[in-house]
Amino acid sequence: MQRCGNWLAGQLRLAGLNRVRVLPTPRHPIVYGEWLGVPGRPTVLVYGHYDVQPAEPLRNWKHPPFGAEIHDGFLHGRGASDDKGQLFAHVKAMESLLQSTGRLPVNVKCLFEGEEEIGSPNLMPFLKRNRRALKADAAVMSDTRMLSPDRPALTYSLRGQLAVELEVKGPHHDLHSGNFGGAVHDPLQALCEIVAQLHDRDGHIAIPGFYDRVRHWSEAEHQYLARTGPSDAAILHEAGTATAWGERGHSLYERLTLRPSLSVTGIHGGHAGAGPKGVIPSQARVKLSFRLVPDQQPEEIERLFRRFVSKVVPRTVQVAVRTQIHSRPALVDRRHPAMRAAARAYRRVFGRAPVWVRSGGTIPVVSEFQRVLGIPTVLMGFASPGDSLHGPNEKFSLKNYKRGILTAIAFLEEFARSSGRGVARRKASVPGFQTPGP
Amino acid sequence: MQRCGNWLAGQLRLAGLNRVRVLPTPRHPIVYGEWLGVPGRPTVLVYGHYDVQPAEPLRNWKHPPFGAEIHDGFLHGRGASDDKGQLFAHVKAMESLLQSTGRLPVNVKCLFEGEEEIGSPNLMPFLKRNRRALKADAAVMSDTRMLSPDRPALTYSLRGQLAVELEVKGPHHDLHSGNFGGAVHDPLQALCEIVAQLHDRDGHIAIPGFYDRVRHWSEAEHQYLARTGPSDAAILHEAGTATAWGERGHSLYERLTLRPSLSVTGIHGGHAGAGPKGVIPSQARVKLSFRLVPDQQPEEIERLFRRFVSKVVPRTVQVAVRTQIHSRPALVDRRHPAMRAAARAYRRVFGRAPVWVRSGGTIPVVSEFQRVLGIPTVLMGFASPGDSLHGPNEKFSLKNYKRGILTAIAFLEEFARSSGRGVARRKASVPGFQTPGP
Repeated sequence: MQRCGNWLAGQLRLAGLNRVRVLPTPRHPIVYGEWLGVPGRPTVLVYGHYDVQPAEPLRNWKHPPFGAEIHDGFLHGRGASDDKGQLFAHVKAMESLLQSTGRLPVNVKCLFEGEEEIGSPNLMPFLKRNRRALKADAAVMSDTRMLSPDRPALTYSLRGQLAVELEVKGPHHDLHSGNFGGAVHDPLQALCEIVAQLHDRDGHIAIPGFYDRVRHWSEAEHQYLARTGPSDAAILHEAGTATAWGERGHSLYERLTLRPSLSVTGIHGGHAGAGPKGVIPSQARVKLSFRLVPDQQPEEIERLFRRFVSKVVPRTVQVAVRTQIHSRPALVDRRHPAMRAAARAYRRVFGRAPVWVRSGGTIPVVSEFQRVLGIPTVLMGFASPGDSLHGPNEKFSLKNYKRGILTAIAFLEEFARSSGRGVARRKASVPGFQTPGP
Repeated sequence: MQRCGNWLAGQLRLAGLNRVRVLPTPRHPIVYGEWLGVPGRPTVLVYGHYDVQPAEPLRNWKHPPFGAEIHDGFLHGRGASDDKGQLFAHVKAMESLLQSTGRLPVNVKCLFEGEEEIGSPNLMPFLKRNRRALKADAAVMSDTRMLSPDRPALTYSLRGQLAVELEVKGPHHDLHSGNFGGAVHDPLQALCEIVAQLHDRDGHIAIPGFYDRVRHWSEAEHQYLARTGPSDAAILHEAGTATAWGERGHSLYERLTLRPSLSVTGIHGGHAGAGPKGVIPSQARVKLSFRLVPDQQPEEIERLFRRFVSKVVPRTVQVAVRTQIHSRPALVDRRHPAMRAAARAYRRVFGRAPVWVRSGGTIPVVSEFQRVLGIPTVLMGFASPGDSLHGPNEKFSLKNYKRGILTAIAFLEEFARSSGRGVARRKASVPGFQTPGP
């Protein structure tokens, strides 16, 4: 991660950015660079993340996940879309402008982190500690998807996330399943019995109070989603399954965006190898990912989850809950000048207006940019359905990588023209960064 | 496995056995040796297995699982008790007699396999194919446990086993849990929902018909178990847990021996590493081990299990069931002369009579020795509770290893004296072995 951060900083210097630095955090460094050459013009905070999801299961990749091979017009590899490739489109956009014109149309601050996929734990305190240094009028990032390779989209809503790990502990050592099977509660069985109670038979999450703060949307919003969003068939096609699942009374697009969800993202316990093993494992672990919607709060959902688990856990085992990610859901005001500028940029490059979409995914920093810095985030995604984000065989279309560079350039130009249309003019600020000791 | 088999054959030759050979099977070889120097005396078939359980999780071992280190009077390592160490007591018993007296008190055929822990798939056809060559009056093996390090036990009942792996298949590739969570049935969740239905709330196995053939025992047998078997407290102490689980109305010893059970021996799916991963895995696998009691048949239980799964599986996922082990439960007649000879042998070495015990474990060949060869098996175990069979830190007391050698010697001597007490005299047979091609 350190080497990747250093490499990225070098690319920012090559692009022509100033004050480039690799800022330490307790874990993975934050890479910063800026160009503040047009005082009086708006300032854009360009965000991206250079960390990636785990690449396992490795045997399912057709090309090596860290080989960055190009085949058939796609860059193949972990992070090709999420988010190294999309991040890099912005770096190349700035390089193009700076190397060809010597300037950018607006002031820019780049903030690239290495912890997005683990909930941005160190970026949050960094934002709070450096409110002044990071002052800007809007943030922009490319870490979302288009509706299809030729249908651009601007994301205005993201789900939050609560990721937890539940450990079920039974006997203090692994036991012979013949010598003890039938007299001792198998921790894997207990784990299944707990997990099975998290949903009711209709696909609703069965934790009392879980839905209490889920926002109800207007009929107009539902109609807009139905008109503009992907069909159930398109979602199932991309998922590679014939059968939908989940809450009745909601389209799949609504289930993925307006409704919260709970995924079981990993279970491990007992014998992993081929063939049988006669063992009752002493412990088992399950990883759970709740996706949250306005106005659910991860802290409150975690409390409800812990209370539920403590009620359903049988007295024959012990449990421990570890929190891994707390991220709030985010909504962006579609009428903000930066959003309008982005829409015009898409029209210039793709020849058509972007569709406003909701995403079921989570980008932890978006709600924090709003809360801490008071700015909206323009979610200009260039990934496509089928790019296999988080799964094996992640890829990124080179055609849309290039259109991404052009759209990022157009956005900076269009946002410059927003001056006087509601964007505050501020003197670019250059205080030093406050970082914690290593 | 081949090298281990060859090494073991070398040890049999050193002991002084004849016609020692390493017989190929489609998987792991069978090691055979014999000494037929007393025609007219009974013949004992000495059985053992040189394969072991998987050693994982490796990090939980205090000493290397394949280091065979001696500490505090114990041999530490995978297989120390189950079954390499116990098997070797018989080899050393024969070596002792042959090297000091030049003969054995009875005829002996040694049959050591390398597939016991995977259900002896190739030994079964070997037995059927070589009925005449393996002709004997009784089998003896040491692959069970005493009640405590100084309380010898003769096992007269074993549970059978049905081991299966259930695979739950969902989307055809791993999915982003944000982009798809709530619209697609998570295979790990579906797996938990299926596994949770295998038991009812009282700890009974919920598969219709599962208990239909479970034998009812006389009040006398229940009283004998209560009088001679380990207490609930002793079983829980060995298990390293404070809380019992399972069928009410049965002592823990009864739950482990008279009653069938179902253990979840492994679940694996999704992200295994540290930290979170936002993924819905495309598939998940669970390994299940049913322990069966008279008169349950593994084939019938498998049919009932498959029918149950096909009824409860939601239409949102596919399932596949793979069978790994089919083993019948076994009962040995306590009045057989070989059993009486073993009891006298224990009295000579330990100074006390062995307790007749039931074991919850499975040794696939025992029921087959009865069915195919028509002989009972003397289960002379020298392992102890606390030896951690199948778990990390398996060990074997050197003191009981030595007492095992002495008891094995005494057994051969005592069984020789059984001649005329109901043991048929047969001419030792020496036909060639029928083995399948490699």
